[in-house]
Parts: sequence; C-alpha cells; structure tokens
Amino acid sequence: MAQNARLQNLGILVLCVLSFPAMTTAQQSALNLMPLPANVQTGTASLRVDSSFSVAFTGYTEPRLERAGQRFLEQLRKQTGLLFLNKPGDSGKVALVVHTDRASKEVQELGEDESYTLEVTPNGAKLDAANPLSVLRGLQTFLQLVGVSPEGFAAPAITIKDQPRFPWRGLLIDSSRHFTPMDVLKRNLDGMEAVKLNVFHWHISDNQGFRAESKKLPKLTAVGSGGQYYSQEEIRDLIAYARDRGIRIVPEFDMPGHSSSWFVGYPDIASTPGPFKIDEEWGVMDPAMDPTNEKTYKFLDTFIGEMAGLFPDRYFHIGGDEVNGKAWDANPKIQDFKKAHNYKTNEELQTYFSQRVQRLVNKHGKAAIGWDEIFVPGAPKDILIHSWRGTEALAAAAKQGYRGILSNGYYIDLMWSAARHYAVDPLGGAAADLTPEQKQLVLGGEATMWSEYVNWENIDGRIWPRTAAIAERYWSPESVTDANSMYARLDVISQRLEWLGLTHRSQPRKMLHRIAGPATPEEFAALLALAGVLEPVKDYTRGESTSYQAITTTPLNHMVDAVPPESDAGRRFSELVDKFISTSCLDGDARERLRAQLTTWRDNDAKLQPLAQRSFLVKEVASNSQDLSALGTAGLAALDAIAKGQPAPDAWKAQQLAIIEQVKNPKAQLLLIPAPAIQKLVEAAASAGACAPPTT
Amino acid sequence: MAQNARLQNLGILVLCVLSFPAMTTAQQSALNLMPLPANVQTGTASLRVDSSFSVAFTGYTEPRLERAGQRFLEQLRKQTGLLFLNKPGDSGKVALVVHTDRASKEVQELGEDESYTLEVTPNGAKLDAANPLSVLRGLQTFLQLVGVSPEGFAAPAITIKDQPRFPWRGLLIDSSRHFTPMDVLKRNLDGMEAVKLNVFHWHISDNQGFRAESKKLPKLTAVGSGGQYYSQEEIRDLIAYARDRGIRIVPEFDMPGHSSSWFVGYPDIASTPGPFKIDEEWGVMDPAMDPTNEKTYKFLDTFIGEMAGLFPDRYFHIGGDEVNGKAWDANPKIQDFKKAHNYKTNEELQTYFSQRVQRLVNKHGKAAIGWDEIFVPGAPKDILIHSWRGTEALAAAAKQGYRGILSNGYYIDLMWSAARHYAVDPLGGAAADLTPEQKQLVLGGEATMWSEYVNWENIDGRIWPRTAAIAERYWSPESVTDANSMYARLDVISQRLEWLGLTHRSQPRKMLHRIAGPATPEEFAALLALAGVLEPVKDYTRGESTSYQAITTTPLNHMVDAVPPESDAGRRFSELVDKFISTSCLDGDARERLRAQLTTWRDNDAKLQPLAQRSFLVKEVASNSQDLSALGTAGLAALDAIAKGQPAPDAWKAQQLAIIEQVKNPKAQLLLIPAPAIQKLVEAAASAGACAPPTT
Repeated sequence: MAQNARLQNLGILVLCVLSFPAMTTAQQSALNLMPLPANVQTGTASLRVDSSFSVAFTGYTEPRLERAGQRFLEQLRKQTGLLFLNKPGDSGKVALVVHTDRASKEVQELGEDESYTLEVTPNGAKLDAANPLSVLRGLQTFLQLVGVSPEGFAAPAITIKDQPRFPWRGLLIDSSRHFTPMDVLKRNLDGMEAVKLNVFHWHISDNQGFRAESKKLPKLTAVGSGGQYYSQEEIRDLIAYARDRGIRIVPEFDMPGHSSSWFVGYPDIASTPGPFKIDEEWGVMDPAMDPTNEKTYKFLDTFIGEMAGLFPDRYFHIGGDEVNGKAWDANPKIQDFKKAHNYKTNEELQTYFSQRVQRLVNKHGKAAIGWDEIFVPGAPKDILIHSWRGTEALAAAAKQGYRGILSNGYYIDLMWSAARHYAVDPLGGAAADLTPEQKQLVLGGEATMWSEYVNWENIDGRIWPRTAAIAERYWSPESVTDANSMYARLDVISQRLEWLGLTHRSQPRKMLHRIAGPATPEEFAALLALAGVLEPVKDYTRGESTSYQAITTTPLNHMVDAVPPESDAGRRFSELVDKFISTSCLDGDARERLRAQLTTWRDNDAKLQPLAQRSFLVKEVASNSQDLSALGTAGLAALDAIAKGQPAPDAWKAQQLAIIEQVKNPKAQLLLIPAPAIQKLVEAAASAGACAPPTT
Repeated sequence: MAQNARLQNLGILVLCVLSFPAMTTAQQSALNLMPLPANVQTGTASLRVDSSFSVAFTGYTEPRLERAGQRFLEQLRKQTGLLFLNKPGDSGKVALVVHTDRASKEVQELGEDESYTLEVTPNGAKLDAANPLSVLRGLQTFLQLVGVSPEGFAAPAITIKDQPRFPWRGLLIDSSRHFTPMDVLKRNLDGMEAVKLNVFHWHISDNQGFRAESKKLPKLTAVGSGGQYYSQEEIRDLIAYARDRGIRIVPEFDMPGHSSSWFVGYPDIASTPGPFKIDEEWGVMDPAMDPTNEKTYKFLDTFIGEMAGLFPDRYFHIGGDEVNGKAWDANPKIQDFKKAHNYKTNEELQTYFSQRVQRLVNKHGKAAIGWDEIFVPGAPKDILIHSWRGTEALAAAAKQGYRGILSNGYYIDLMWSAARHYAVDPLGGAAADLTPEQKQLVLGGEATMWSEYVNWENIDGRIWPRTAAIAERYWSPESVTDANSMYARLDVISQRLEWLGLTHRSQPRKMLHRIAGPATPEEFAALLALAGVLEPVKDYTRGESTSYQAITTTPLNHMVDAVPPESDAGRRFSELVDKFISTSCLDGDARERLRAQLTTWRDNDAKLQPLAQRSFLVKEVASNSQDLSALGTAGLAALDAIAKGQPAPDAWKAQQLAIIEQVKNPKAQLLLIPAPAIQKLVEAAASAGACAPPTT
C-alpha cells in the first residue's frame, strides 16, 4: 500500500517533467551543467563569488544539512581556490540562502522528493528545497554554475526548477572480481553525488571473493575473501557516507550461481561436493547453491537476516543471473527433486529457489531486486527486475505489472563511447510502446562497473566521465539528447570531478609514466600522442582473446589498462575530417590542421622507438605505434591526392585501404581510433566529385 | 655522558663515509638512486621482479618491521602495477631476504645507526641491516633500484654499502601560517622516508595560529587557532606514523616572539596589554612574551611539561628568532627589570629568557634546540643551534663546542633552483675550516617550508622534488656534487614520489585547469606552454611587493601559486642555447630545435588570447604571455642574424636587449625564465667571432 502511494508520486513527477519545455542546444551548451536541469530560465549578469561568500540555512534543519553546508564550501574552495571567511550559518552578507521545507525519510526511500528551485541573481542566490535530499541536489547545481569569468569567479543569473525524470539512478561497482578499497568507493560516491545519482549498487559477493563481513557466518570472509573484505564497521561507515550524499546503498549477494566464494567456507549449501576455492578466472562458473536442500534456506535465513540489519535500504539484491545448471545436472538428489516436483527444466528449479529466497527477503523486511532471471511466473509483485537483457524484458515485465530498471546499454565495462550509452533510454526500444501507466513501472537504470579489468588504479577512468552522461540520461528530460552538447559539458564536468578527488585524468598519466620508465620530455610526449588515439577493444573481446588470458592476479599495468575507453583526440580528428570533406575538401584551415596532425602521427613512431627499446610495456604497443605512423602516411598521401584535384587511381585506393584494414585489427587489445576517419579521407581522394579542386 | 657516547658514534660514521671512493658521474646517472649511496659496486644482469616476488625477514623482528614489509610490497605494487601473490614472510621462492641484527631505540635517537648492506644478484637480493631503522633505509634503496626493463620489471645486480653522512636530516613544515591537513603531512612523511630524511621539524605555533591542542591550556587552540589545530590524538597518530618511517618529530613552539596566537587566550604572559588577535599578515610582529614576569615561566612550565609528554623526541625546539624588542621597550616594568639586572640590550634580556626556558626544557627531560638567537653566553652545552644565519654562525658555535644544524641555504620557500640548494653544504663556507672534531658538531641540516604562500594544494610542489636533492646533500658523500647527474635522477625520483601519493606534478595541472576554466585542448596547451617557462619571483620579493599584499586568507590560486619553483623547460632551453653557441652556432640540429621552440613561443600568445578574454586568472598573466611572444621573436631574429654569417649591427642589438631587459621585470610575481638565454643568443649574433657562418 505504501508502495502504491510511492508509485503514484512517481507518476506525478513524470508528468511534471513533461510539462517543462525542452531547451535549445545553444542554451544547453552555454551552461556547463550535467545533468541538465528540467527547467532553466537564464537571466543577465551574474553573482560574484569571492572570499566573502557564505551560505545560510533556513527552515527545517538537521546535522546532515550542516555537514552538507561544510562540504559545499569545501568543494567550492577546491574548485575556486578561494578561502571563505565565513562558516555556514555565520551572519553577515549571505550569498546563498538555502530553505528546507521538511525532513527526508529516516532511511532514504525510492521515489522520495528530490525537487528544488534555485534562483541566482547578481545580489544573491536562493535554493528552495523540499527536504535535505533536494538540498543536496540543488547545492551540486549551484557548484556547477560557479566558474571563472573575466572579473572573478561567478555564477550566472538564472532560475532553475529541477527534479529527476527517474527515481532510480544507479551505479553498480563490482567489488568481488577486484576488491575496491574504501577510499576508492568514497571518492566515487562523491562523484555520484556531483551528478545526482542516488543508488550505489554494491556487487559485494561473486565467485572471485566474498567481501562483506558476516558475524554469524564468519567463514564467508575468513576463507572466501582472500583477506580482502569490508568489516561491518566499514560498511556502516560507507552507508552513512552515502546517506550524507543522498545515495542509497543496495547490496547484492548474487545467488544461486556466482557463489563459489560462499562455498569455500560453507560447502554444505553447494550442489556438488567440495572442496571449493575462490575462483581466479573470469566467466560463468559451474558451482551453484543446492535449491533442494533445506540447509541452504536455513543458511540464507540466517545470512539475509543479518545483512538486512546491516543494510538499511528497503531493497535487497539477490542476483539470480547466469546459472548454467551443470552443478544441478550433476547431482542425482537434485534430479530426483526435480522429478518429484515435476520440474522439467533447471529454470523451473531456479524459479522455486527464487520464490523461497524472495520470501526470506520479505520475512526480514526487505523487497527483493534481482536480475532478469528472477522474473518468474508467480513472482511477488513487489520485486524489482534489474534487466541486463534489455528493454524488451523490461517491457514484458511492465506489461504484467512488474517494476524494473535497465542496465543493458549501460555496461560501462564494455568500453563503449559516452554517446552510445547516452543514446540508450530506459523508456526506449520496446519500452517506448508501453502505456503511460506501464512506463511508470520503469524506474530508471544503473551503470554497471564489472571489475574483471579494473582495480583501484584505473576504476575511476572506467567510470568517469562517461557515467556523468548516463546520469544525465536518468535525470534530465527525455528531450535532452544532443551528443555534441553532452560532450562539450562532459569535458567540463570531467575536470570538476578531478577537483573533487577522482583520478580518471591524473592516474592514467601516472600509469603512462610507469609504462615509459625514465623518459625525455620528447619521448614521453610521443607515448602520450600514441595513447591519445588508442582505445581498449570493445565488448567482451578482451576476455575472448586466446593470446591473453587474464585472471584475478594479472597485473593491470598495460597500455590497454591505462587508456580511457574513449579517445577524445580520435573523436576530434574524425569531426575535423567530416568537416573537411563536407566542404568538398575546400576548407583550407581544416586541411592545414589535418596535415599538421597527420605529420605528427607519421613521425611519432621514430620518437617512441627509444622507449620501446627500454621498456617491455612500450614494446607491447610497438605495432600500434607503427600502425599510427602508417595511418599518418596514408592520410598525408590522401591529402596530396586531393590536392591534385582529380580522383586518385583505384590501385592507389586499394593499396591504402589494405593498409588501413590491417591497422583496424586490434593489437595488444587496443584499437587505433583514427583509422575509419583516414579511410574516409582515402575514399574521398579516390572518389569523383567528393573533393573539389583546392582553391590554391 | 650518553650524549658524548652518541657523538663518538657519529664521529666513527663520518670517518667510514670518507673511506668510500667517490663514484664517477656516469655511474651516478645510470643508477636512478637519490640519495646516492655511500658505496656502490655494480654487477651484471639483473633480478627479475614479477608477481612471484616476495620478501622475508630474518633475525630480530618487531611489528614495525612487519608493517614495513607490507608497506614495501604496497609501494612496489604502486610503482610496478604488479599484484604480488605472496605476503611478507610467506614461504616459497623469496626474492628479497632482510636480516635485522637488533632492535632500534624505543624512541628514535639522534645518531642511531642507519647503515645497511644491500646485495642484488640475478638469483635474489639480501638486505643486511643493523636495526629496523636501517631496514627502512635499505628497503627504499631497493624500491628505487626496481625499474622497467626490456624484459619486465627488474633490479640491477649491485652491491651497496650505505650509511648517512649526517645524522640530522630534516624537513621543517610551518603549519601555522597555513594549516597543513593531516593527510598532507602524512604523504610528505612518505616522501621524506623515500629520500631517507629522518627529522620532521614541526613548526606548529606562530603568530598566525597555535595548532597543537593543550589540555592544560585549552585556550591556546580554542581561541588561538581559528579552529584549525591538531588534537593530541592526531599528534600521537602522526608521531607513530613517522616512527614507522624512521622519522623523528621535533616540535617547535616559537618563543618569546612569533607568539601572538598564544596571547589571544593568555594575554597575561605578553609584554603589552591585550586584547590580542591571531595575526593575518606576514612578517616580524611586535608582540612578545614577558620575560620578566614569573607568570610566564609558570605558564611555560605547565605547557612544556605537557608537550614533553606528548612528543617523545629528546629535542624540543624553542624557536627564539626575530624578537624586535618593541613590546619590551613599550613596557616600563620590563625596562625597570632590565635596569635592575643591568641588562644593556634586549638581546641580554632574551638571553635571560632563553636560559630560563632551557632550564624548563631540561627539567622536563628534553634538550633544547633553537634558532641562532638562543646561542648566548653561558648556554648549556647540550643545546642544539639551528642556524638560519649560515655556516659562519654554525662554525662560531662549533668552535665553542656547541652542536648545530644548518637551514640557511635550504629555505625552500625562497624559490631557488634545486642546484642552488644542492651546492650548499652544512660543512661548506666558514664550516669548511673547522677541525675534524669541530666538524663533528655540525650534525646536518633542515629544508624549511615556511608557509606564507603555500597551502594544502601547492605545498607538495614547493617541497618536492627539490627537497630530494637536499636530502642527497645530507645523506650522500661530500664528493657527490654533480648537478647534471642530480637533475637526471631528480626527474626520476620526482615521478616516483607521485606514485607514492605526493601531488607536486598532478596538482599544479589541476590548478592550471582552474585558472583556464573550460578550454579547448589548443588553448590549454598554450597555457601549459606559458606556465612551463615561468617561475615565481625569488627570495622575499613577493612579500615586498607593494602591488600585492597577501594575508592568511588571500587565495593561492594564481599562476604564481601553481608554477613550480624551477622551470624544467627553461633549464633545458638554456642548455640548448649554450650547446649551440659552444659549437660556434654550427650545430644544425640544435639550431632547428631552437627555431622550433622559439616559433612556438612567438605564436603562443595568439593561442592564449581567448582564455585571457574569459578568465581573470589568465588575464593576470597576459603581459607574461606577450613577453614570451616578444622573446620568441627576438630569439628568431637572433637566429636569422646568425644565419647571415656576420655580426648583427649594434643598433639591432641594443633594440633587442632593451626588449629583453623589459621582459626581465617580474610581472604578476613571475619571471620569464628563457630571457637570459635569449639574451645570450642576441649577444652571440652581434658579437664578432662568437658564431661562425652556418655551413648551409
């Protein structure tokens, strides 16, 4: 019943959003906000932010708001370098007045009000917020408004009325495949707050390690974690840290599969005899809990009961994905059980397990959330379907009255571009055809940071800045879809996230220094230039490689671990080529910039050679470096051919395309991003009419 | 007596050092060690360091050694990206065996043995250490030996016998002018350990804030700190942290001057009537303790007693510097006291104060250390003179049997080059003429990080990497003086310190992003290019500026706060000009590199202009940017003139030199470093015989 009331609230929110007009791209770009607010009216002039700036709170108050005020000034200090003379609440000239209507829920709930109004004038700013949660959202917007101006730091005059499009805006971090240290988690929660995400989905157990301390079942971490786990004190600390930032923590204990690490200490609940060990490899593993054994449910009753006390959130994620059934097929007793219950398939057996576990979750006061697989006939209506399969699965569930969130399309471990994730909408695809009422059952989505190839060092660079674009998808109106605007603002938010303490820009540079070893400035510049146009291979290519088999202890210190998922330099080069060709190759400025860039690439390999001689980690990318040189040469040849004013011969074109085709093959798990754009140049050079004769 | 025994030990150490032969420059450069060890014998081949690497401890053991082993593997992990399969002490193939003879002192003492022998062969490494302190030193040497090689990470085969030249190797951080957060202190202690410094001199009180919690005199921090102070728990935590790293913490409570902050809560001990406030400005202030009032000594007895219990080190720094006497002159009672005691000068009055305070320090079980001013007739022989005045003062004290350490020449707030500090020797100048016995009284030195213009954000960049060069001065044999070798190794250690967690390379980049605001890659590159050839003005020029008056709350977010004290690009350009001219301007490669660099500089201002229009922080350096452009133009003109093969006319020379002279004027508190080198080019171009006709 309470649940229904919440859903009705959500419905009202969604309608409100739609009533706000969409902004033009120009308006979006001028404001370096991410996510873009639901409604913005820009004014003229701006509010000066200097050392005398202060913030005061009126209306409802609580310690969390005081801390938020201190943190706000601290963040403002970091992003401006100003030292503020006043503490929050000090009297004197107050630049920002925050009014809070009422308290938030004691435990943050799905669908709680996050709306706020922020008005900035040259004389001061006013943030009107429904509750502390809304205050947090509004303060982050204000921080993003403050920038450097010709006269000093300032926030533009503006009126913002804002609220989220979706109530469930999450980031999953997998702390099992690689352990995520507490400081890394905390700085990523800071990043989540900055872009208004509100659910941290903590994938805290899997085959490769059980990471949450259980006092009642201590062997889970004693022998199932390799010594890397979170104490209950640390978990409580992180939950408090998240609450201060308006973030719920939803723990996931994946079962009945993905659970080898449980069985190291408790083999009795497994379907096959032990002994078990913590898995070191990646992939879908055979071990699974025994769904036919009452011991399993007794164990889970104890375990879920304890964890339900530890994690205050209403939702409890029970996983449920990727059970291959081999362990069940191998156990005659389980086969007997299936026959006795007339289960034809292992899916039916898993349905039985899911129903039992969901009842245990309910018994301990929680609602269950799980991957698509838990959506089985007769599942209780309060479950929440977490879809890795896609909008079709989500739509099918919604049509039967089940709520869901989307992660398909937001798998940030697949190394897609920000634009590709950005184009995925939880209400897109099959969900677009749902009725308005059914659409209200789609609550949002989660970016998923599976950690096979990330650790403390490169995780920030995998999550950020792309997750800021995904956060915009979840928060901003459906009409906000301009990828160019997104990239322009993403570049700004990315730097702001570094000021906040994230390391997605600075740590890769340190990794490149490690790859290089001692180097001259010229040598290191050559390595930077190469790294700047490389991207890791996409999707699950890395895991499928036969030449490279990583396990949990494989060092993540190679070039593929250091370079960002998306090459900014590659994207800009591609845009420049498109621009050049769109002018029939007449744009002289674009031509000269292309020529300069291609020349640098052609000559880069020679500069990198000394490093490749000294460092095995550079030697690994020697082929990529030679390929870049080849691309530079091919691109220059194309420009020369274009300059001749007549289509280049077919033989030449075939030769160039063969080179480029070879370059497109991944090497050292890396792609050379400019290849397609240079192919375009070659094709333009060889195509009648594509490029007019140059005007020189 | 114990003291004398210690001094004799020191004497033996010094003699040992002298018995080791000096290394050639080539040997020094090949090994990226800093400080260079006392004795090195290089071997052939190397020890591979991969995931199977492990460390084991034999002989004496204690928890500190276990933590050191864990920290060692953690640092090795950070610098290689390897994940080690074994924990310290695990059985199996052990690559590094550490043998410890005996325990260190319970409280680390001045002159304790820090010697070790490290032998690396392709089959394994062995570290033989006298005690845990020596282990710490040897482990850092091993870490510095490990680097990237063509085959993987490796340490070269080598035998090192090492010990320090001086027993007191310190870094002072002034936490009063700007408060230093705990995490900043800790990462700087990590840096100190990496370069084998062993004394952290904590300047913890001054006019601008009293930072150490006193439970007996709580108003010291309650009203004297502006809320920024260290709790006793934090202080104990830092002391333990330092002990783990083989670092003593010597607190300094500066008195009777530099003490305004004491008087805010306790005006009774001041020489003039209150009320007092925490000073916001820099400089020598008038307030001073009343040396004639018994209340003062009662207060100090209580205070020193409490602090002597908090800080375990034998030495207690009582400051004593820069009393201008105005407060004493203004107080008739103090004048009466002087007459009654027949003191002619305020210096004599301070002598009286010093003697009383030194007795209190002794009473509470400590030895006093203080600035030159405490070296007064009749001072107890166990005091230690900390010389800001120089080697003459130190030599004078040594001749009377007093021990001392040197800071003159190591004031890293003066923005000198690493080479300039490196050239200063505690036993140089007047101390060079001391007898061997007197020389033994010169115990070492301290780099001093006065914090008028540094805060949490730029302090790392002021301390590092220059302090590594100073650390080498204190540790390595006197004969190690080659600045070229030092710079080559400094560049390597600088990157290693970043891996360790220091931010001297990464944070300035973040500051530049703040200065720029949102920028295109080209615009930001232009800002980087300009910043790369700027240095802050030297000595106390900044404080003496009339156009710029900083106080404690002045933002340190300007270009002068971001750029390093020393421009690497400027130094390299100057070397290239010297090389070019030394070949009678015939070196074609050098000429082309000069031309490319000068062209970049000439054209840089145009690229920076858009940023200067948008950001006041860039606008502030618009003149510097125009100057760089002018330098580029002048340099290119000089190259053109040289190409003509005959001396350029005097009028041309005068015109160019006038431009350069104008450029040399500091602007925005910044110097443009290439100016003198370009002046050399101009003079060479105009000088008959300096440059031969080019061979083209």
